[in-house]
Amino acid sequence: VIVYGRNPVREAILGPRTVSHVWLTKGAARDASFASLRGVAISVTSSEEIEHRCGSSSHQGVCAEVSAFSYADGDAVLGKPGSVLIALDQVQDPQNLGAIARSAECAGALAVVIPERRSVEITPAVCKASAGAVEHIAVARVRNLADFLVQAKDSGFWCYGADASGARRYDEITWSGGVVLVLGAEGTGLRPRVAAACDELVSIPLRGRIESLSVSAAGAVLLYAATAGRARPRS
Amino acid sequence: VIVYGRNPVREAILGPRTVSHVWLTKGAARDASFASLRGVAISVTSSEEIEHRCGSSSHQGVCAEVSAFSYADGDAVLGKPGSVLIALDQVQDPQNLGAIARSAECAGALAVVIPERRSVEITPAVCKASAGAVEHIAVARVRNLADFLVQAKDSGFWCYGADASGARRYDEITWSGGVVLVLGAEGTGLRPRVAAACDELVSIPLRGRIESLSVSAAGAVLLYAATAGRARPRS
Repeated sequence: VIVYGRNPVREAILGPRTVSHVWLTKGAARDASFASLRGVAISVTSSEEIEHRCGSSSHQGVCAEVSAFSYADGDAVLGKPGSVLIALDQVQDPQNLGAIARSAECAGALAVVIPERRSVEITPAVCKASAGAVEHIAVARVRNLADFLVQAKDSGFWCYGADASGARRYDEITWSGGVVLVLGAEGTGLRPRVAAACDELVSIPLRGRIESLSVSAAGAVLLYAATAGRARPRS
Repeated sequence: VIVYGRNPVREAILGPRTVSHVWLTKGAARDASFASLRGVAISVTSSEEIEHRCGSSSHQGVCAEVSAFSYADGDAVLGKPGSVLIALDQVQDPQNLGAIARSAECAGALAVVIPERRSVEITPAVCKASAGAVEHIAVARVRNLADFLVQAKDSGFWCYGADASGARRYDEITWSGGVVLVLGAEGTGLRPRVAAACDELVSIPLRGRIESLSVSAAGAVLLYAATAGRARPRS
């Protein structure tokens, strides 16, 4: 598969994927992080060829052929007690998945959990939107998100669903131990079965006239609340 | 000027701008918030005509002719002691300005402050990215951001610049009284003169391998930290 953009290609090189070929414009070839690559075929070419290879005009002069994205296992991410996970219920916008993966990686969350169906996957556009963060955080695909939450609770995690009408405010919660944050798609929110599988529904105060935060802003606020005072995760 | 998209047009109708004409597709015309408009010319038309009028394919079947966006005055937003403001130094991406305006409106901040030069203005794309939030929050344009911060400090505001190498962590701060949050553009950060005009530089912990949060995620985290426990702003 192809990833494109300076940060996504740089992070793919630093992360676990195998990078087999990098295409650069002359301008991008001056960037030291690409010039010093070993064991990788490098071609300096035109911006047009790079756009043709990656199918996007947002390539910033760089694209790379990399091995397929390797998803984590749902059971495996529940095997580290005391972690913070973020699960997305039917989020279909690559920008939102990418933005949340980036915030989750920065906050020190262990993993992003997405359902197999009706969710965007880790596409090149998601890699780009995450600024390459998906190379450094586990992304688990699970068959059924409500079932995963039941399993998470059995494994000692506390599951908090984000809901504008949630009974408890996020800043009233003591975020200790294992936590799964659950966010729904913009506009529709959590599906009833997913909401029912959460231990608590939590709200972020809205003090203006707009009805909701964006899912990526809500994710950033909850991720930093839940990880406050925690150490870096061990990978 | 033209605004487009369901939320942006709905909020333009609810906000202070004059809406003179709304164009809807048949599908969008079923939406009650547009059907009940009074004193506004409504045309039901094709998706193609709407795209032609607004110059974007992200119109969701709605666009409207509205009066020009009315910026707030820098002096006026400093006239409300105890408020939270967010200032953006040379943020040029409409998505970032829109996302931050939305989070600021939701968090209950009083205003977004942008410099007159080298900053994106309130364009239709910004209205769309903000989900219409710019209709309900003051946006002040100032000639020089560093001078504005000096003036803010004289007016009793405490100015916090976001900086990954900032000496104090954002979660160690007692966010009381008047606050100006200052964020720089992604990649470049705050300009030296703007950073020097801040009372303190604050950092958000990065516990992963990625070098920075997105400016919109950092904005959401700082806005909710700074407004925690505050009441709704009076407008």
